[in-house]
Amino acid sequence: MSYLLNTWYIAGWADELAQGGMLGRTIVEQPIVFFRNSQGVIQALADRCPHRFAPLHMGKIVGDSVQCPYHGLRFDGSGQCTHNPHGDGSIPKAACVRAFAVVERHGAIWVWPGDSSLANNALIPDFSFLDEAPTHAKGHGYLPTRAHYELLSDNIMDLSHVDFLHPDTLGGGALSRTRATIEELPHDRVRISWWAPDDVPPPAFGAHLEDPSRADVWAEVIWHAPGLMLLGSGATAPGRPRDEGPVTWNLHLMTPQDAANTHYFFANTRSFEQDNAQLNAFVQEMLIGIFAGEDKPMVEAQQRQIGEVELLGLSPVLLPVDAGAVRCRRVLRRLIETERAAAQASPSSSYGKEESR
Amino acid sequence: MSYLLNTWYIAGWADELAQGGMLGRTIVEQPIVFFRNSQGVIQALADRCPHRFAPLHMGKIVGDSVQCPYHGLRFDGSGQCTHNPHGDGSIPKAACVRAFAVVERHGAIWVWPGDSSLANNALIPDFSFLDEAPTHAKGHGYLPTRAHYELLSDNIMDLSHVDFLHPDTLGGGALSRTRATIEELPHDRVRISWWAPDDVPPPAFGAHLEDPSRADVWAEVIWHAPGLMLLGSGATAPGRPRDEGPVTWNLHLMTPQDAANTHYFFANTRSFEQDNAQLNAFVQEMLIGIFAGEDKPMVEAQQRQIGEVELLGLSPVLLPVDAGAVRCRRVLRRLIETERAAAQASPSSSYGKEESR
Amino acid sequence: MSYLLNTWYIAGWADELAQGGMLGRTIVEQPIVFFRNSQGVIQALADRCPHRFAPLHMGKIVGDSVQCPYHGLRFDGSGQCTHNPHGDGSIPKAACVRAFAVVERHGAIWVWPGDSSLANNALIPDFSFLDEAPTHAKGHGYLPTRAHYELLSDNIMDLSHVDFLHPDTLGGGALSRTRATIEELPHDRVRISWWAPDDVPPPAFGAHLEDPSRADVWAEVIWHAPGLMLLGSGATAPGRPRDEGPVTWNLHLMTPQDAANTHYFFANTRSFEQDNAQLNAFVQEMLIGIFAGEDKPMVEAQQRQIGEVELLGLSPVLLPVDAGAVRCRRVLRRLIETERAAAQASPSSSYGKEESR
Repeated sequence: MSYLLNTWYIAGWADELAQGGMLGRTIVEQPIVFFRNSQGVIQALADRCPHRFAPLHMGKIVGDSVQCPYHGLRFDGSGQCTHNPHGDGSIPKAACVRAFAVVERHGAIWVWPGDSSLANNALIPDFSFLDEAPTHAKGHGYLPTRAHYELLSDNIMDLSHVDFLHPDTLGGGALSRTRATIEELPHDRVRISWWAPDDVPPPAFGAHLEDPSRADVWAEVIWHAPGLMLLGSGATAPGRPRDEGPVTWNLHLMTPQDAANTHYFFANTRSFEQDNAQLNAFVQEMLIGIFAGEDKPMVEAQQRQIGEVELLGLSPVLLPVDAGAVRCRRVLRRLIETERAAAQASPSSSYGKEESR
Repeated sequence: MSYLLNTWYIAGWADELAQGGMLGRTIVEQPIVFFRNSQGVIQALADRCPHRFAPLHMGKIVGDSVQCPYHGLRFDGSGQCTHNPHGDGSIPKAACVRAFAVVERHGAIWVWPGDSSLANNALIPDFSFLDEAPTHAKGHGYLPTRAHYELLSDNIMDLSHVDFLHPDTLGGGALSRTRATIEELPHDRVRISWWAPDDVPPPAFGAHLEDPSRADVWAEVIWHAPGLMLLGSGATAPGRPRDEGPVTWNLHLMTPQDAANTHYFFANTRSFEQDNAQLNAFVQEMLIGIFAGEDKPMVEAQQRQIGEVELLGLSPVLLPVDAGAVRCRRVLRRLIETERAAAQASPSSSYGKEESR
Repeated sequence: MSYLLNTWYIAGWADELAQGGMLGRTIVEQPIVFFRNSQGVIQALADRCPHRFAPLHMGKIVGDSVQCPYHGLRFDGSGQCTHNPHGDGSIPKAACVRAFAVVERHGAIWVWPGDSSLANNALIPDFSFLDEAPTHAKGHGYLPTRAHYELLSDNIMDLSHVDFLHPDTLGGGALSRTRATIEELPHDRVRISWWAPDDVPPPAFGAHLEDPSRADVWAEVIWHAPGLMLLGSGATAPGRPRDEGPVTWNLHLMTPQDAANTHYFFANTRSFEQDNAQLNAFVQEMLIGIFAGEDKPMVEAQQRQIGEVELLGLSPVLLPVDAGAVRCRRVLRRLIETERAAAQASPSSSYGKEESR
């Protein structure tokens, strides 16, 4: 299994990590512990004490360091051992753990599992719409899923599935009747967009339209390699501007745990009734119901049928609706190959050595 | 692992499959979906959409077709895609799934996982006694079991085990005291029979005899390759004809799911008190108790001890009581080898190609 | 995976095996059934009938033999088949199972998984202190643990962990402040001892001292290959003799089930309030809470982080506190290699053959 390593992944939502607490999570097969230093700044270390390999996230925070639960060695955010409570307290030179570049932004924890010297905060996509949305018009969640992360990305890149998997809420038929437009964007992104004028709006939008039977229906997804997706969709009275009708902007963020497990993070906002806390609670519950009750079981079943091989290696019958998903898979494959070639060309980098275990 | 493919297996009891419903079951490692067309005739397809490999049994029935739960492609009983709801609705040539020969007979669903052109309904054993038995004198059930199907067949082919595993119900000592007679029958069958004159009847029969202490006790099993067994047994006052005493005819039908899991189907009838619904309920409950509580745990424990190797490869100490089971294993081995040799001789058959994945 | 085979392992506590009952337990990957003959003497056989590999421990005891649950063959403590209930009752020559040397001593069942002809009862360590302790001043228990047995031995050989893993009960800081003394003893033993004069006693001892704030604190562990550990510890007013203060002697006995699972047996005694049944119950509950709630989760987490490789192969950062554990690992490695070399030198021994499966 190969992953893109020199890239930002979402490791969790920032509110999963309280001051003084710890979050242990495996990202691209690397166990990582996240904690906040005394200034509240998030730190990320390999979640494995170099002494006897106890998981650091089972320990506790002491000042700016995490203390190993087993024998009390402490490590600060740089990965350096800062305290050895045994005997004369001398610290062996090798007593350090790998530190990862980590950033808190848009309410999320971003981690760079590759070479930290290449980590560039400017490469984090701009998801500030999430920060700006009013409290009662947004929500977010996390769904561990037993499937390869690309199957979950495919699911979002082909929204026509809503007409069959979510017919009573998000479906309506418009997206499967419409041929989507696909374009590659700069910075390793792919956009897919649907435009269905004067068609049947999804039930969830129809409830917020004067005439719920006909509307101009639209949707678009911008995929950012390796698995960050911004999804907008809406419906408006035929011929009227998009922002007159209900609009939602959502995030679907897929972080590989390993080849068979994905950390699926999602967030959503809406343009209508933004102060309606009751509607907000209803929307969050509905979305969790859809993702956890319909998408997750389907993608996990798909994974079981596919097994451990690569989807495209099984020669699936591709439909025009797959064009977006296939484009993303190709971009990602190219990026991974480029990165691997670069790593082999300069195998002496400290990063290369660390990964070669 | 190799299985006999050009043969009929029981996929389920017919009452497991309602009109409009679906049954997904893996037979010899092939996931198959069963459904009824609008005439109620059972159809069997590979349970994997050729588009993105979603399991079809999670979808729904529309007319004579099954609709994929994920993107709405529909397939009729021949495996042909009949509807593509996307865009202009054109159907890719490759959009089809494998169809299996399937027959509903004797209250069971029979499926032929090999070359459909060889499927011959006349090869289904005649189990019409089950159709003819009065309602209150029969029952059937299903027990998924974590063991190789041949271990379950062995269990029935050596009924002397009843004296030790089921001493309070089916045992009594007569079968282990008696040497069984074994003969190969035409059509890949093996018969084993026990005849214990003037011996101790099993408790379950004794309760229906005037003198429960002595009887002529008999039993016989006819094994049909690869794992269909018809079992008759009874007890009668010494010297009297068999049909004067209680008699049962039962089926024990072993369908491999894979090398380590078996679909164990069973059915039973009885000759006595055929209108006694209360006794019938008691018998069904007793049999489930015996199969699920005594046979299944034993065979599963045996499987754990054996591991993934073949039983005879472990050089077990064979007793005369094993002669029937060993004979069946040899017949089955011969049939599988013959089938494989034929498949290699004509690798260009469509069936051969489909299997070569 | 290799284990020391010609050695005594604890298979269980003697009170786990009632007269007429059976205990099935896998020791160094060998399933073994333990039972008592009619004189109450413990017997140990391979837990696998040679006929069809049913686990014998699911059967029943008849006289001095265990009867197979499946077809009724009986085997006495020598492993010889003593009864075949089928047909004329003749017993095939090969109908026998391997018998293991087994001894009941110090309230425990000791088994020798290697060559029985080398089993020497004198090699069982003298743990008679356990027999002699008053009823209300001792206890014992069993904790199946998902970790390699050497990780569990390491845990006891480096008691400085108590200051971090058990700070409120067994910790106090004295052991991690003190450099331990290590010496190899005859008969493949290693002793590690801590002596911390005028230091902070562990809370569990402080509660039994006049001045709970300062004491001479001591501890020692004698490891007997492959994983039997005698642990003594105590605290006494500064400058006073050890036996004036509270003292406990404990056993920590690690028996490998396989490479990833250990049977962890423990026992404890105490020198103080030996007639206090209420305190005894409190101590037992506290210890179970510590072992099951703190040590077991930590060692199991450590095992998950390490995976299936050998700890020292991962180049851990070793501290002076590891010296005892590393010494034991080296002694054990040397013993295993010596044993393997001897087995290869005389491959014709019956024991060598039996193991070569």
